[in-house]
Amino acid sequence: MAIKNLRSHLSKEAAGRKNSPLKSAFKYYGKDNIIFLGGGLPMADYFPWEKIEASSPAPPFTTPAGIAEKPSVTGNEVKTILEKGPTGKLDIPLARSLQYGHTDGQPELKEFFREHTEIIHHPPYKEWDIILTIGSTEAWDATLRTFCDPNDYVLVEEHAFSSAIETARALNVNFVPVPMDEYGIIPEKMAKILDNWDSSKPLPKILYTVPTGQNPTGSSLSNERRKEIYALACKYDFIIIEDEPYYFLQMGEYSKEQDATKLPVPTHEQFLKSLVKSFLSIDVEGRVVRLDSCSKVLGPGTRLGWIIAQQELLERYVRVHEVTIQSASGFTQSIVNGLLQRWGQDGYIDWLIGLRKEYTIKRDFTIHCLEKYMPDVVSWTPPVAGMFFTVVIDAAKHPDFATKYDSDPKKLETAIYEKAIEKGALMIPGSWFNVPDCELSKTTKFFYRGTYAAVDLPKLDVGIHRFGDAVKDIFKL
Amino acid sequence: MAIKNLRSHLSKEAAGRKNSPLKSAFKYYGKDNIIFLGGGLPMADYFPWEKIEASSPAPPFTTPAGIAEKPSVTGNEVKTILEKGPTGKLDIPLARSLQYGHTDGQPELKEFFREHTEIIHHPPYKEWDIILTIGSTEAWDATLRTFCDPNDYVLVEEHAFSSAIETARALNVNFVPVPMDEYGIIPEKMAKILDNWDSSKPLPKILYTVPTGQNPTGSSLSNERRKEIYALACKYDFIIIEDEPYYFLQMGEYSKEQDATKLPVPTHEQFLKSLVKSFLSIDVEGRVVRLDSCSKVLGPGTRLGWIIAQQELLERYVRVHEVTIQSASGFTQSIVNGLLQRWGQDGYIDWLIGLRKEYTIKRDFTIHCLEKYMPDVVSWTPPVAGMFFTVVIDAAKHPDFATKYDSDPKKLETAIYEKAIEKGALMIPGSWFNVPDCELSKTTKFFYRGTYAAVDLPKLDVGIHRFGDAVKDIFKL
Repeated sequence: MAIKNLRSHLSKEAAGRKNSPLKSAFKYYGKDNIIFLGGGLPMADYFPWEKIEASSPAPPFTTPAGIAEKPSVTGNEVKTILEKGPTGKLDIPLARSLQYGHTDGQPELKEFFREHTEIIHHPPYKEWDIILTIGSTEAWDATLRTFCDPNDYVLVEEHAFSSAIETARALNVNFVPVPMDEYGIIPEKMAKILDNWDSSKPLPKILYTVPTGQNPTGSSLSNERRKEIYALACKYDFIIIEDEPYYFLQMGEYSKEQDATKLPVPTHEQFLKSLVKSFLSIDVEGRVVRLDSCSKVLGPGTRLGWIIAQQELLERYVRVHEVTIQSASGFTQSIVNGLLQRWGQDGYIDWLIGLRKEYTIKRDFTIHCLEKYMPDVVSWTPPVAGMFFTVVIDAAKHPDFATKYDSDPKKLETAIYEKAIEKGALMIPGSWFNVPDCELSKTTKFFYRGTYAAVDLPKLDVGIHRFGDAVKDIFKL
Repeated sequence: MAIKNLRSHLSKEAAGRKNSPLKSAFKYYGKDNIIFLGGGLPMADYFPWEKIEASSPAPPFTTPAGIAEKPSVTGNEVKTILEKGPTGKLDIPLARSLQYGHTDGQPELKEFFREHTEIIHHPPYKEWDIILTIGSTEAWDATLRTFCDPNDYVLVEEHAFSSAIETARALNVNFVPVPMDEYGIIPEKMAKILDNWDSSKPLPKILYTVPTGQNPTGSSLSNERRKEIYALACKYDFIIIEDEPYYFLQMGEYSKEQDATKLPVPTHEQFLKSLVKSFLSIDVEGRVVRLDSCSKVLGPGTRLGWIIAQQELLERYVRVHEVTIQSASGFTQSIVNGLLQRWGQDGYIDWLIGLRKEYTIKRDFTIHCLEKYMPDVVSWTPPVAGMFFTVVIDAAKHPDFATKYDSDPKKLETAIYEKAIEKGALMIPGSWFNVPDCELSKTTKFFYRGTYAAVDLPKLDVGIHRFGDAVKDIFKL
C-alpha cells in the first residue's frame, strides 16, 4: 500500500522554503582532490575542549537503588570519554559535534533512535525516517510552521497544555476543541464535529494530541480509541501530531492491593508488550508525525528530541531547521549518544523499566493519599500513564453554589485554589488549560492538575493532605 | 536622555504573545511553606549523569602553541568538574541545568556575558540587558518574528549571507538592498534610499547588518560609517540588528612587511582599544539589537549565543523562546560556563587575543598567496576582520566578454567557478549572495568569496594557486 502524498497540507511558508544555493557547492566539501575555500568553518584546533568525561549509572536498573543509584556509591558505572578525534567507533568526536553541520542530527545518535523506534513502534510503512530536534516544544512550533497558515483550523483536546496552545495561538490558527472524558478524546464526539463541518471553512489539517498521560488531564487513549481516531484522520484527511513525552511512563492500571515497590521485574519482552500502541505503530498511510523527547526520560535540559514521520515531510522540517535552530547542541549529542551507545538498546529499555517503576510507586502513593485525605465531594480516576493526576469536584454539590458562587464553577475553583495555597499546597486549576476563545463542554464539574513527578513521597503526603483540608474548609465539611 | 519606546515596531505576533497563565502559580515554586504540585518537573535523581569533567587549555594563550595547544601535551590545563549538586560557587550544577527553567539563560553564564559586554561595549544607556540564545541563526529568526509582519520592509546589505536572507524570505518580508563598496554599506546611498522613500509604503522597521568581517564580502564598516548609519536609524526610526559573529576576528590593516607570527603581544588594554566601535556602544536611544555568538570563538556546535538590547524588547524575545526553543542546552550552559568562570574575564580576553593572532597569520598568508598567484585582472582589498576574503574580477577586461559571454558577467563568473573546480579549488561565486528579486548596483565587476578559516596554510597555498590558474586559463593569460 502506498503512503499518502501530503504535500497539499504544507503551509505557504513551508512549501516555499528553498534549499541554500551553497548546497550545490558543499557537495565538494571533504573531497580529497578539492581544496574547499567555500565555507566559514572554524578549525577544530580552536575549540577549547580537548576531552570530556561523563559518569553515569550502569544497567541493570532493577537494584533497590534503581535508576537513582549513584555510580560513585555503587561503583556500577558507565564512563563516556569524548575527545576531539575518534575514540570509540560509536562515539561522536567533539571535532564533529562542535562543528557546523548535520541539521538532521549526528548519524550515530539518529541511528540509535531509529533502531529504538523500530523496536518500540515497528512503523508499518517503509518511507519513514527520523530527525533530531531540540525538544518537542520547538518541534511543535516547527510543525505549526510546516503545516498551518494563519486562520487554518487545528483539532486539539479541549483541555490542553497551555504552552502548546500559546505556541499555536500566536501563529493565529483557529482551534477546534474536541470533547474528552477521563480516557481522553471521545472519538464519537470528534466524528460528530467533522461530520457536521461547515463546508465553507477548510477542514482541519492537523490534530494535536498527547495520547498517553495527557497534560493536563492525565488521561490516556485506549488502543480502540486510537484506531477510531486514526480512521477519522484517514476519512477527513488530517495529519495526527502525536506529542508523546510521557509515553514510557506507563504505570498500568492502579490496584489498591499492589505494592509497587515489590512488583516483579518484567522481562524486556513483557515490557514492550505492555506498552499502548502508538498512532505511529498503526500508521499505514504515513499521516502521523510523532514528537519524541528526552525531557522526561533523561532530562529536560538535554534539549533533545526527535521527530518520526514520512521522509518527504521531514525534509521540510530540515529546511526550516537549517535557518533557525541549525541543530541540537553538540555537547548534548556527543554526551547523550555516548551514554546510549554504552547502554545499548537493551540497557536503555532497562532504564525505561526502572523509570516506570519509580513513577508507579509515586502514582500508587498519590492515590493512597487521595483516598486518605480527600472528602467525598472529590473524585479521581487513577492515571495509567504520565506525571499528572486530576481531582474532580462537582460544584453543584456545594450547598452555597448558587448563592455564594453565583452558580459559576470557576468562582468555586478559584476559592479552593486560594485556600489551598493559604494552607501550603498548590495544584493548578483545570480551567487554566481550557482552549481559549472556544465553546467547551458545559458542566458544573471542574478539576485541578497535580503532579507526583516533582516531589518525594513525604512531601506528596503533606501536599495532598493540605489540599484535602482546603476542600473540606470551603465545603464546610 | 531617555531611550526610545519601540513597542510600535513589534510585529502582530510579538505584540500579541501572552505570558503563560501558569506563571502566576510558579511564583510559589521553591517556597519553603508551599508543597508545589503544579509543574511536571522530573526529579534530578532520575537524570543519568552524576558527574561531568571537561579538560581545556589554560591561559596565557601567547605561547608558541597559542590557542591550539593541547592540555594533555603541555600540562597547562583548566579542568571543569560538574556534579548534580553545587561544586564551585560559580558553576551551574547539572541538577539545575538539566532541569526546565531559565529560558533567558542560567544566571551565572548570563552574568558572565553581561560583564563581558560591559567591558567590550559599555552600552551608553542603563536599561539594556542580555538573554542567552541557541546561536544567532535562531536569534535572527526570532528577531524577524519579533519585529516583522509579512510584507514589511527590511534593509539589508546588497550582498548578504544567503541563509540569513532565506530565513527572512520565507517569512515574506520585502528586502531593501543597500549598496556597498569594499568597506561595507555606503551611508550616502542608504540616505538616498530613505530620503526618496515612497510614502505610500511603510518605512523599513529594521536594518540587518554584519558590520565586521561581513559575510560574504569580508568588508568592515569604519567607526565613521557606523555613526552615519546610526544617525539615519534615529532619523528614520528603524532598529539596527547587528549580527556580529566575527567581531573578535579583527586582524587590523594588512601590511606586506609584517610577520604576523612575530607581532608583539598586545596588553588587554591595547587589545580593547584596537577594537572597532560596535553599534551597541554608540546606541544612546536603545535602538540596536546586537546578536552575539560563541560559534566563531568557541565552537559552532555549542549552539550558544546572546542578544543584547533594551529590556522591554528582550522581554518579547523571552515570550517567543518560552514556547519554541525553551532554552540553550543544559550541557552547553554548564560546560561553557565552567570554562569561562575558570578562565575569568581576563582569561577569555586572552583567548580572544590568541584567536585573533591565528586569523591574522592566516589572513596575511592568504594575501601573500594572492599576490603570488593571481593575474593582473584580479583585485582584492585585504580584509581587516572576519573569515572571508573576496577576489574581484572586471568582466569588461576579458577580450571575448561581448562575444563569448554575451556581455553577461554572470556567465564569466560561472566559467571561472567551474574551471577552478576542474583544477581542484572552490570559492563561492559572489552572485550567489545577491539579495533575491531586487535591483542591485549594475556593474561588470563580480567577485568570489573565499575563506582562510577552514584549512591550514599549505592547503590555502595550493587552493589559491589553483584558483589563479583557473582565472589565467579562462582569460587565456
